[in-house]
Amino acid sequence: MFTTRLDLARIRAARGDIDPIFLDTPLYRCDALGRELGCTVSVKLETANPVRSFKARGTELVAGRLAGRGGTAAVCASAGNLGQALGWSGRRRGIEVTVVASRRAPAVKLDRIRALGAELLLVDGDFEMARERAVSVARRRGVRLVEDSLDIETCEGAATIGLELASGASCFDAVLVALGGGAMATGVGYVLKTLAPDVEVICVQPLGAPAMTRSWHQRRVVTTDSADTIADGVAGRYPIPEVLDDLLAVADDAVLVHEASIVTGMRMLLEHAGLVVEPSAALGVAAVLEDPDRFAGRHVATIICGSNVDLDAYQRWIRT
Amino acid sequence: MFTTRLDLARIRAARGDIDPIFLDTPLYRCDALGRELGCTVSVKLETANPVRSFKARGTELVAGRLAGRGGTAAVCASAGNLGQALGWSGRRRGIEVTVVASRRAPAVKLDRIRALGAELLLVDGDFEMARERAVSVARRRGVRLVEDSLDIETCEGAATIGLELASGASCFDAVLVALGGGAMATGVGYVLKTLAPDVEVICVQPLGAPAMTRSWHQRRVVTTDSADTIADGVAGRYPIPEVLDDLLAVADDAVLVHEASIVTGMRMLLEHAGLVVEPSAALGVAAVLEDPDRFAGRHVATIICGSNVDLDAYQRWIRT
Repeated sequence: MFTTRLDLARIRAARGDIDPIFLDTPLYRCDALGRELGCTVSVKLETANPVRSFKARGTELVAGRLAGRGGTAAVCASAGNLGQALGWSGRRRGIEVTVVASRRAPAVKLDRIRALGAELLLVDGDFEMARERAVSVARRRGVRLVEDSLDIETCEGAATIGLELASGASCFDAVLVALGGGAMATGVGYVLKTLAPDVEVICVQPLGAPAMTRSWHQRRVVTTDSADTIADGVAGRYPIPEVLDDLLAVADDAVLVHEASIVTGMRMLLEHAGLVVEPSAALGVAAVLEDPDRFAGRHVATIICGSNVDLDAYQRWIRT
Repeated sequence: MFTTRLDLARIRAARGDIDPIFLDTPLYRCDALGRELGCTVSVKLETANPVRSFKARGTELVAGRLAGRGGTAAVCASAGNLGQALGWSGRRRGIEVTVVASRRAPAVKLDRIRALGAELLLVDGDFEMARERAVSVARRRGVRLVEDSLDIETCEGAATIGLELASGASCFDAVLVALGGGAMATGVGYVLKTLAPDVEVICVQPLGAPAMTRSWHQRRVVTTDSADTIADGVAGRYPIPEVLDDLLAVADDAVLVHEASIVTGMRMLLEHAGLVVEPSAALGVAAVLEDPDRFAGRHVATIICGSNVDLDAYQRWIRT
């Protein structure tokens, strides 16, 4: 048995605290994509909701519990999707949301955070700089700091995807999970290792932002000086120790993929599944592309975790 | 009260005969799209399934009942989506499926029908020629002819979308439904008029293929000599009298839209909702674009009914 910060009963209970609009997302086999990839491919679609990513599963828990305790404000650092999700979940509960993001984040993500009525603070550095700034803002204002992957609600929210994967009629051989801060990978991984231990849990990260994957392989926190990837949603550099511990307990593997594979993955998801996705959501397909023998003939599920992408950049990528 | 061929109890029971993968599809407000259109917009997403259209709701009923009676073969005419859906529903029940389609149908639709193992017969004319050919094939072979919109299962299947729209927490002022043969419009319209009579049911058809809309306004079948629209999924010319009767009973309005509005609608669904759709699925947005005052400030739901689109053509359209 393994020990993590996660708990199955809490995750099951969490479903009741998440707006149903974010639950029970489509999960279906995509034969056209599978033919191209040489395996059976199911997609778990987390983009058909008001914030176009899986992140609201977690922010619904954060905001619900905060409001339940009388909290009225929250601040988070975000690569762009958490901020939208917290903005959405906060707005409907009367919570003032402040999002700290990198000025270099995709414009659509920043625009949509503002459109949700959240205060948006921009930093000149990358996501890790935004994290530092969010800590100081929260401290100065005395409001709730929401830390993605560290705050257990963000992991429990993402873990509800695992419940839906585990309860499906389909029997997967492997589930491919985008790896950034680790909330989704640890949450989904924990549930699968608990309810469907034979399913291989494979985390996928870009070679250009490999900190958590390197940490997993070396079983200790490894940071990087920079992150260089189009997959802006997973471009962290400082893994959180508690999250790494959980990931070590629940992931079967963590692999790194090239930028070119991410682009090809995005193009294949468009051509064969009709899905416009952001780069992070193509990591699973990229992993299959880079190691086809490993997946040949097997049934893999990949989580399409977000679709907030600048269309100009997207069109450039898929035309390459 | 109104009389149609449809029955609420049968439609409710139908849910049990449809693979759950096609049911309870995402229904959510898309604020970015609403801001552009000047109203509140919810989308009902019927594309996140193995056949990328709503048609399998109906073919699940057709194939299930046919198999239950020992049937082993079926033939249908299709603009492309019904054929895929019948192919999918037939394959898993051991039913041999033959699809008759126009040679001019989008290549992706034809390719995907073949990929599902269905026999594909092509005719040189349009959809109405395919319908004639399907009748003769069925008669010659002595197998079940599946007639979209005429066969009650196709209407009942589509009507289950109406149940989901009516049961949502949201209260719509109007629902915009693409109008082709009429299965979706009569099915959804019947359920809404029964369970939520205040919701306006508005059918939308291209000006280039206006037969059913003209028939609805003139309260008698009006045929056209040709159909000329990029919305290949709704390009019929010969309305079916029984379906028109039902539509007269349940629709509040039927409007025609220009091709340019359909193209703009597709582009807006991509830019503001991240959705790649086929032209028929953009008819609802097109209707709002052409009559913004009618919808200003109201809450409209539009059914995103299909995403089987040739990407080359799609890219040309949205770049216009």
